[in-house]
Amino acid sequence: MTIPAGYRFVGAECAFKKEGRPDLGLILSEEPAVVAGVFTTNKFQAAPVLACKERIAKSPSVRAFLVNSGQANACTGTEGDANCAKTCQMVADLCGIAAAEVYPSSTGVIGAQLKMDLWEKGALQLAEGLKEEGKSQADAERVADSILTTDTVRKMVAAEVQLSGGTVKFLGMAKGAGMISPNMATMLGFIVCDASVESTWWQASLSDCIYKSFNAITVDGDTSTNDTILAMANGASGVQAESEEDKALLARALRDICQDLAYRIVQDAEGGTKVMQVNISGAGSPEDAELIARAVGNSPLVKTALFGEDPNWGRIVAAVGRSGAEFDPAKLVLRFGNVVAFEKGCPAQGDLDALIGPLMQKEHVEINLELGDGNAEYTLWASDLTKEYISINADYRT
Amino acid sequence: MTIPAGYRFVGAECAFKKEGRPDLGLILSEEPAVVAGVFTTNKFQAAPVLACKERIAKSPSVRAFLVNSGQANACTGTEGDANCAKTCQMVADLCGIAAAEVYPSSTGVIGAQLKMDLWEKGALQLAEGLKEEGKSQADAERVADSILTTDTVRKMVAAEVQLSGGTVKFLGMAKGAGMISPNMATMLGFIVCDASVESTWWQASLSDCIYKSFNAITVDGDTSTNDTILAMANGASGVQAESEEDKALLARALRDICQDLAYRIVQDAEGGTKVMQVNISGAGSPEDAELIARAVGNSPLVKTALFGEDPNWGRIVAAVGRSGAEFDPAKLVLRFGNVVAFEKGCPAQGDLDALIGPLMQKEHVEINLELGDGNAEYTLWASDLTKEYISINADYRT
Repeated sequence: MTIPAGYRFVGAECAFKKEGRPDLGLILSEEPAVVAGVFTTNKFQAAPVLACKERIAKSPSVRAFLVNSGQANACTGTEGDANCAKTCQMVADLCGIAAAEVYPSSTGVIGAQLKMDLWEKGALQLAEGLKEEGKSQADAERVADSILTTDTVRKMVAAEVQLSGGTVKFLGMAKGAGMISPNMATMLGFIVCDASVESTWWQASLSDCIYKSFNAITVDGDTSTNDTILAMANGASGVQAESEEDKALLARALRDICQDLAYRIVQDAEGGTKVMQVNISGAGSPEDAELIARAVGNSPLVKTALFGEDPNWGRIVAAVGRSGAEFDPAKLVLRFGNVVAFEKGCPAQGDLDALIGPLMQKEHVEINLELGDGNAEYTLWASDLTKEYISINADYRT
Repeated sequence: MTIPAGYRFVGAECAFKKEGRPDLGLILSEEPAVVAGVFTTNKFQAAPVLACKERIAKSPSVRAFLVNSGQANACTGTEGDANCAKTCQMVADLCGIAAAEVYPSSTGVIGAQLKMDLWEKGALQLAEGLKEEGKSQADAERVADSILTTDTVRKMVAAEVQLSGGTVKFLGMAKGAGMISPNMATMLGFIVCDASVESTWWQASLSDCIYKSFNAITVDGDTSTNDTILAMANGASGVQAESEEDKALLARALRDICQDLAYRIVQDAEGGTKVMQVNISGAGSPEDAELIARAVGNSPLVKTALFGEDPNWGRIVAAVGRSGAEFDPAKLVLRFGNVVAFEKGCPAQGDLDALIGPLMQKEHVEINLELGDGNAEYTLWASDLTKEYISINADYRT
């Protein structure tokens, strides 16, 4: 795994989480970089989200991503905002940059104000860490670990792209929809790239990718107050993405990284054992395609059947029917992989269990719904619903 | 429990379900009655639903409700429709009435055409049963039992209402959102009354009630292709509901019965241990109120916290925030019972666990959300989400 040029990665252990696990991470660009961000659509937005949105509206320039896990700053009152500002200032002072160039994120237990004493100890550790180079894969992994909560595996991906002027590198990391007692889910993603890019194009590219990656996954249909995806490009490779061809290559790589990270979040869903890829085609509109995909991917009945490895076409058809989308029920064709399970209003003939059963035993299950109504498509990745999910989310206090 | 006048109740065992359980039920009015019906909004609609809708569009007159459980007629093709028509004709011949006066419903395993040989045996049993009077509470209970699938308790309620002309009686029965391998949920409800009513008013009253009862409950957010609520009033009491006052009394009783049955369905939700009553007040519009209530009541995170008896205000607030409703987050006040848990964007001070914990241990938990935006209200009853729900819906094939 090769790390993009011009970035330093520092992790620290502040005891926001249990001891021995990093829970504070800093990604520092040695030079000002171009930033793009996409944030939760929840009406309640945490202090760090509001801070990032304020910064990005003023200037597309960034120096650092700062994230802590284990205790979320989810309050939106004056004290939450002030604490957020203090943490950014601490780290800015350490790095010799402006607080406005630090983009904060936070995930973990909610309900209390940030433990600022732990932050102060964390800042001292970051100062120690900054004495090292911080450019190895191990350094990046430590930051990728510092953002995890109930995730069971680190989610980090790297990529290289050949542009006309040379090679540029990407590194992405994410955390999934883990809940902490008593808490909300939060999805965080950070992507760094050493290409030189134009800021408006960079933001548009990220927004585009999100629709087909982080916004196209579902664990339980819930959206956190802290969800944040940030991407920066610092130009340290000396390679510019100027031509349309180069831009297309770079945007494609960004999308692949977003999709890869998003898929890993679903794979590592709380209690999850399988991922279903719900492909909608032939819909009358993109909105209808998405409505149907979400009705299927969020249906507890479909998700439990997936867990039970049962090709339960009835639950899928019922979910499609109540999705609110416009379509002609008589034209719907449902396939598991390539095997038709339902068409013309009735289940397909033949021993569906024998034909589809083996597909259901895999860790990746494709559910294909062709509507015959138009050309719109949508793909959603969703986890199954298991007893372990209930344990994690109901028994966490005992 | 007193049974409305002029009705006969006959149950039979056809082996659609396991032996020894009634699975075919007939409610016969001795005279033509006025019918009202409300049906699934799923785009896929089963043959019996289509038959009922066709009948009710032509004439508000009914003689019989006919229901089988254990095998659903969920196909909408020619054969499904023809089989549905045959079963109605069989029973009409037995009773000396027209097939168009028989309203069919069906719930149970889907995916195959109806087992008509079992139906023929069932018709013979109904013929035997019709030799008895069929007017006792035990007779009605047998029919109430015949509609159950994975329900664990019978759901039957009775009521008497004093109108100006005398006393009229109601009897209602329902089945819950039980799934049968491999199957969809179906909710069925049948209400009979011996008042004499005007048909347009009767339908309007039922439709009105449904919005605040059967449509205001959620187990898993899924809607079956067979959901059906039917109500008939046969006038056998000799008492007419003519004055506005009498109509209001009767409509109120009908609503109470619908709410009682609906609540019992949530109480007996698959794997359910608790019911949460989500009360929205002060919303800007009824649509916003309903959006918020459904986001909370369907949230897997809120439902698992309810199961875990945890006053998890964060999950509720996050669900409200992503509901899509318009409101001012700063004005939201969340109470468990009468105890404030969240307001002005932050959790309330004090030991919330100690204050709210005892409320969470009850079987009925009230979640009150005041939006401060207007006068619209909505109440939703929802079940919790438990490991037993996963077992029922994932492990049914092993």
